Amino acid sequence: MSGVENADTKTAVIDLLGVLAYGTLIGFDRMAADARLAPDLRRRAVLAVMAADEMRNYELLAVRLDELGADPETAMAPFAEPLEAFHGATAPRTWLEGLIKAYVGDGIADDFYREVAEFLPEEADRTLVQQVLHDTRHADFAVAEVRAAVEEDPSVAGRLALWARRLVGEAFSQAQRVAAEREALTDLVVAGSGDITGIGELFKRLTSAHSARMKALGLSN
Amino acid sequence: MSGVENADTKTAVIDLLGVLAYGTLIGFDRMAADARLAPDLRRRAVLAVMAADEMRNYELLAVRLDELGADPETAMAPFAEPLEAFHGATAPRTWLEGLIKAYVGDGIADDFYREVAEFLPEEADRTLVQQVLHDTRHADFAVAEVRAAVEEDPSVAGRLALWARRLVGEAFSQAQRVAAEREALTDLVVAGSGDITGIGELFKRLTSAHSARMKALGLSN
Repeated sequence: MSGVENADTKTAVIDLLGVLAYGTLIGFDRMAADARLAPDLRRRAVLAVMAADEMRNYELLAVRLDELGADPETAMAPFAEPLEAFHGATAPRTWLEGLIKAYVGDGIADDFYREVAEFLPEEADRTLVQQVLHDTRHADFAVAEVRAAVEEDPSVAGRLALWARRLVGEAFSQAQRVAAEREALTDLVVAGSGDITGIGELFKRLTSAHSARMKALGLSN
Repeated sequence: MSGVENADTKTAVIDLLGVLAYGTLIGFDRMAADARLAPDLRRRAVLAVMAADEMRNYELLAVRLDELGADPETAMAPFAEPLEAFHGATAPRTWLEGLIKAYVGDGIADDFYREVAEFLPEEADRTLVQQVLHDTRHADFAVAEVRAAVEEDPSVAGRLALWARRLVGEAFSQAQRVAAEREALTDLVVAGSGDITGIGELFKRLTSAHSARMKALGLSN
């Protein structure tokens, strides 16, 4: 690997940890606010605990950025705007919308980061990225809540499916923006995927896992 | 100890864990929102981590309430209104007000709970209450930030001192309301303190520790 490639790879790693770090910080914010939509204190506490877990992950990411000689604040800065735009456009109005956002939105993001982690040169970074992905116990909670609500009142399913589609649309639109602006990170994903066919297959895996989540929720995709 | 006294003590323990649990839940909420007042991402993350710690404590309290056969939601319910009233009346408008609230407000509450913990019959509950009090690293951060701000612009000291007085006033007013409504808890504090002189000494210790905190902040009491 040449010196230039090394520098590019380092930029890509810092970008990846930076976007993950800002993601945890704003994910914390938004989930903390969404917890207030809960119908009771028990459910409110579940979402608040999910939000709190984000900050545990933030701390791990900030420590690693420091180790790499990158200031966490500087590393996060390029991702503040697209992530704020995503969350601004997808503020849940109901408890169920909030849960679907946590499950469907974080699910697709986690799948993407899990794949990209495999392209990282350092074992420590690969492990760290896997570690900061969302806990599956949260997924189980969201699925149980949404399924129960849809079973009780099947008429909500259409509106919630539409909401999930909007989430994915907004996520892809902001991801495209990041891809256009952060060349080193995009190069890492392209090189890791091999070629254009590899990228196509990556997206196929992402959309197929998304369909499986929608099915688990009892919603049409 | 008679059966009646035992039942009263159990009620008092559940009340204490219930008020602490709701305190963590709303403390989380408020600090998560206050983190948005931070002047930069680094500071915002510090307050968000403090907020997240509250939910770690919530989980410990909820587990213990379950062990005692008490539903956490039911145990918290009587304290929702006074705690919401306290936080509603003391929503910080600036980053420094938020920090002072976390340091001065949580400080006086922690001192009180630390003393009351000593009156609890079970070692497990005494240890748990000590464990869920706020981390002192937060105190150090708040002190450093406020001192630096006051040194830079001494004219803010008067306004911040007034804010701290208002916090303490609101806290005592809601505490009195709780004391009037939760007889078993009040009885525990009175019995633990020994007599009226003991209560007086307890309050003297609370106000003297509060004065020390104000001094540490560089504010007059």
